[in-house]
Amino acid sequence: MPDYQPPLDDLKFVLNDVLAVGHLTEFSGFENVDEDLVSSTIDLFGDFAAKEIAPWNAEGDRVGATLGPDGVVCAPGFVDAYRGYVDGGWPSLTCRTEDGGDGMPGFLYTIIEEVLAGANFSFAMAPLTSPGAYEVISRRASDELKARYLPKIVTGEWMTAMSLTEPHCGTALGLLRTRAELNADGSFRITGTKMFNSWGDHDLTENIVHLVLARLPNAPEGIRGISLFLVPKYLVGPDGELGERNGFSVSSLEKKLGVHASPTCVTNFDGATGYLVGAPNRGMANMFIIMNHMRLATGACAVGVSDAAYRNALNYTRERLAGRSVTGPKHPELPADPIIVHPDVRRMLMTMRALVEGGRAFCFWVSLNLDLAAVHPDPLEEEAHEALVSLLTPVVKAFLSDKASECTDIALQCFGGHGFIQDNGAEQYLRDVRMLRLGEGTSGIQAMDFIGRKVVGDDAQTLSRYFDSIRQTLDLLDGTGLPGITDELRQALDSVVRLTQEELPRWKRDPEGMAAVSLDYLHMVGYLSLGFMWAKMAGTADKGLQGAPADPTFLQNKLRTARFYCSYLLPEIETLAIRIRAGGSAVMAIPEHEF
Amino acid sequence: MPDYQPPLDDLKFVLNDVLAVGHLTEFSGFENVDEDLVSSTIDLFGDFAAKEIAPWNAEGDRVGATLGPDGVVCAPGFVDAYRGYVDGGWPSLTCRTEDGGDGMPGFLYTIIEEVLAGANFSFAMAPLTSPGAYEVISRRASDELKARYLPKIVTGEWMTAMSLTEPHCGTALGLLRTRAELNADGSFRITGTKMFNSWGDHDLTENIVHLVLARLPNAPEGIRGISLFLVPKYLVGPDGELGERNGFSVSSLEKKLGVHASPTCVTNFDGATGYLVGAPNRGMANMFIIMNHMRLATGACAVGVSDAAYRNALNYTRERLAGRSVTGPKHPELPADPIIVHPDVRRMLMTMRALVEGGRAFCFWVSLNLDLAAVHPDPLEEEAHEALVSLLTPVVKAFLSDKASECTDIALQCFGGHGFIQDNGAEQYLRDVRMLRLGEGTSGIQAMDFIGRKVVGDDAQTLSRYFDSIRQTLDLLDGTGLPGITDELRQALDSVVRLTQEELPRWKRDPEGMAAVSLDYLHMVGYLSLGFMWAKMAGTADKGLQGAPADPTFLQNKLRTARFYCSYLLPEIETLAIRIRAGGSAVMAIPEHEF
Repeated sequence: MPDYQPPLDDLKFVLNDVLAVGHLTEFSGFENVDEDLVSSTIDLFGDFAAKEIAPWNAEGDRVGATLGPDGVVCAPGFVDAYRGYVDGGWPSLTCRTEDGGDGMPGFLYTIIEEVLAGANFSFAMAPLTSPGAYEVISRRASDELKARYLPKIVTGEWMTAMSLTEPHCGTALGLLRTRAELNADGSFRITGTKMFNSWGDHDLTENIVHLVLARLPNAPEGIRGISLFLVPKYLVGPDGELGERNGFSVSSLEKKLGVHASPTCVTNFDGATGYLVGAPNRGMANMFIIMNHMRLATGACAVGVSDAAYRNALNYTRERLAGRSVTGPKHPELPADPIIVHPDVRRMLMTMRALVEGGRAFCFWVSLNLDLAAVHPDPLEEEAHEALVSLLTPVVKAFLSDKASECTDIALQCFGGHGFIQDNGAEQYLRDVRMLRLGEGTSGIQAMDFIGRKVVGDDAQTLSRYFDSIRQTLDLLDGTGLPGITDELRQALDSVVRLTQEELPRWKRDPEGMAAVSLDYLHMVGYLSLGFMWAKMAGTADKGLQGAPADPTFLQNKLRTARFYCSYLLPEIETLAIRIRAGGSAVMAIPEHEF
Repeated sequence: MPDYQPPLDDLKFVLNDVLAVGHLTEFSGFENVDEDLVSSTIDLFGDFAAKEIAPWNAEGDRVGATLGPDGVVCAPGFVDAYRGYVDGGWPSLTCRTEDGGDGMPGFLYTIIEEVLAGANFSFAMAPLTSPGAYEVISRRASDELKARYLPKIVTGEWMTAMSLTEPHCGTALGLLRTRAELNADGSFRITGTKMFNSWGDHDLTENIVHLVLARLPNAPEGIRGISLFLVPKYLVGPDGELGERNGFSVSSLEKKLGVHASPTCVTNFDGATGYLVGAPNRGMANMFIIMNHMRLATGACAVGVSDAAYRNALNYTRERLAGRSVTGPKHPELPADPIIVHPDVRRMLMTMRALVEGGRAFCFWVSLNLDLAAVHPDPLEEEAHEALVSLLTPVVKAFLSDKASECTDIALQCFGGHGFIQDNGAEQYLRDVRMLRLGEGTSGIQAMDFIGRKVVGDDAQTLSRYFDSIRQTLDLLDGTGLPGITDELRQALDSVVRLTQEELPRWKRDPEGMAAVSLDYLHMVGYLSLGFMWAKMAGTADKGLQGAPADPTFLQNKLRTARFYCSYLLPEIETLAIRIRAGGSAVMAIPEHEF
């Protein structure tokens, strides 16, 4: 079974050296967020996750969460592991101090999301809604609701969960039927059936705070008639004491491809008492506060699982003996060479490495932009950071989760036939991570949000500023000269910019053609974005090597992996460009009824 | 759960119209193989597989094969399903008439392999070794062995199985330790532990004939010291009567990602009685008679599972309602449009369709070449067909199985979140088909066989003849003019030919660089090959449309899908070419010990 190794050095490199998050100390409220704090958070949480969370991953997969007479029972070890997570104070890390939190920037929680997912992705899903749920309750709920519910959400003593999907509608939430009727006391009776309710019930916490989308009487049809309600598992008295059980139950758990220890509930709300959060009929906008957080978190989880799969595979390729290097035995003392000597195995390892480390940098760079949007005193800067995060959220979500499937698939392949066997852990990563491309809006949904709303809807203005910032980074690096990296990336950037300029007018005219190429275009920007990150990392590594670095190999490997990325993965852009230019006519050539 | 629909029309189109297998009636022995025979085989077997085999697929996955006190017990329904398969006379279809078979060409059995895999891949794996095992026993075993074992292998009353892998060696069979010691009666005592022994035990047949690789005393080291033995589960008397149980047992079944109903055994041979098949120390060459068959069969299975996954997804996209077409409601009478109206969904459907139908044609074209090698009276033609099959076997095996992972992954994605749920069947296809890229030599192993042995080792002579035959096909089609197809394919062909000419000298000098790009090069030839098939199919469809076809939509869809393939999938060659030209230096940049 895999032995989880948190990526301590790489997290520190990305945050402290490449993104230089220490600069945040300039901003009011983040005075303490220096390199030491970042490094100690990484070390402390990495150690906790490796020792307390990861050991329950494989057993969680085998046993799964189960539905007992009193509700969902978690997989072995999960209750204690979660207690350790709460005792460590991790849930409150990024909550505001006025709510009892530590007031730390959000990127620190991104560390937690990545590392938890690498250690045990089913477990990582449990607190995944909490930062977004905290945010929406903190910003939109009444003072009374906040007083009753927020303190224990902040400490993690109560978990949150999100109820959106119904059996007949997932993406098309406008069709949802769950209804909310006003009670005499101002609360609502919530009635309906929800599904895909992740961690919708469990025994990790004594109470669970559900955020449920439902329809008020006479609400407009479609998504403009949906409101958001807070529905606790146990009702809560004015002093925060637990009252009676609320009117809802879990009727079944889904049997799934992966994340077996993450209970996916079908939930019946039978006149459950709920409280309106935010304005009536504004549920979709408020739900998107949670959703946007989860889409960014998806990227972090995708990187976390991919990294764990990569390291598990790397260890195997060092140990498994088969054949001899094509250039002659590398380990003549052994009966055969370890398979890491074989170039096709190295290609697989390098591909994973380049995607994982590039994806990590991308995640944290976007996460940091979100923090800058929150703290920047200049409203224009704040807006620019916000627009950038909004633009790139679907890319983080879809590109990194799509690439996580690729990484975990390659990792399995490194094991040969042994990858197909459960004991080696590779197949669990593949199964678990597959969820990320489906939940919180599929990759196709992200692609339509990206190209339709974020690019065409904005006349590509924010995107152009993003491209400019890539060019500025390259201009700065050109002085130092990074052969095999900057020229390749500049060429890719020019190619993407030119294609965007050429296609934009066509996309405006032809929404069907735009939709047909949407995922290819998102992937194109994804490859460019990871190239951007690799240029940044290579620049930092190159600079570091000119001093007297403690670990020159680490920095050399960054340059080597950057060059691999630019010669091996960045060229994916070429095929994507041909497809995108071909437009959607071939895609739509067979009419619906002739399929 | 999926409802299996065998691809009857497409099989008939490929075999009767595109490949015109009716021409085989020209050859001695195949006089009866006309279109009617091919069509009735497709109809008959398709009906049998849909009714008798497919219904046990999902339950087989849930229950799996189990190990009881008397050996392996098959999943529910499998024993009766297999009896039906034997009663239908299918196992003997392509065995020679002098051995009691029907003497039909091998491509007819490829139909069976594809359709069985689509219906129930775990079940399809059961008889997968049989044609190859029949071949090696028929050609290499003593008359006495043949007399005792062959008749019931031909009828399918006894199953065969293959024992190669040991815990410490899979691909590197040179390291194997199982030993064979001579008995006084000329038989051998076989002792050792084997693993990954697919269908190594079961209750489908009263006897199982194992073909086991083992080492004779004082045999040379490595793969030149391996011999092939026939080891029956029950010893067989001179008149074919079952005798006592042989000395071997199954110690465990592997828990696997997929094909749960296909038992993967760890088998202990404890002085089991075995019989030498072929010459001593020639076991690898003889085993490759089975292996080559299984590598081609892998392609057929890959297409079969992909097709089933595609049709399952297609049905779902027609039923599931979400959102409205970007060009306005297509089904205003419904609360939402079915998701098939969405261009990104169509892109997924077209991608699967192009890969499945192109892959099918490629499989059968190679299979037909094998038949032509067997019957062609001209020894030069025979050799040319044989060389072509040998060249393309690793491409069929690796490219089609790699693309099957892609197809089943896309199929799952069509379901959105529901694809993650077991009940929809999509996730089982993804899990099951993953095995094909690992067994019988991983894709990486196929790639090294292809580029090293079949291309560089042959100085690209057979490959050049293959490229020439593609060019000839295009020359013939240029007369009729197929816009969006022939020009695109000719350009791709030129690009692959040029790259091969340029890189070949480098590959000869630099085996490490060659190995680093091997899988990319195999994929490049794979994409070109499917393009070749799409040109053939488009040519046939175009010609058909000029008559008065019974089903013009079917033929129009071939042209539409061919154009989609050429504008959307064939351009993968561009990125692959950039990577291959970059060579392997970036791949090998991080030294083994610095990873």
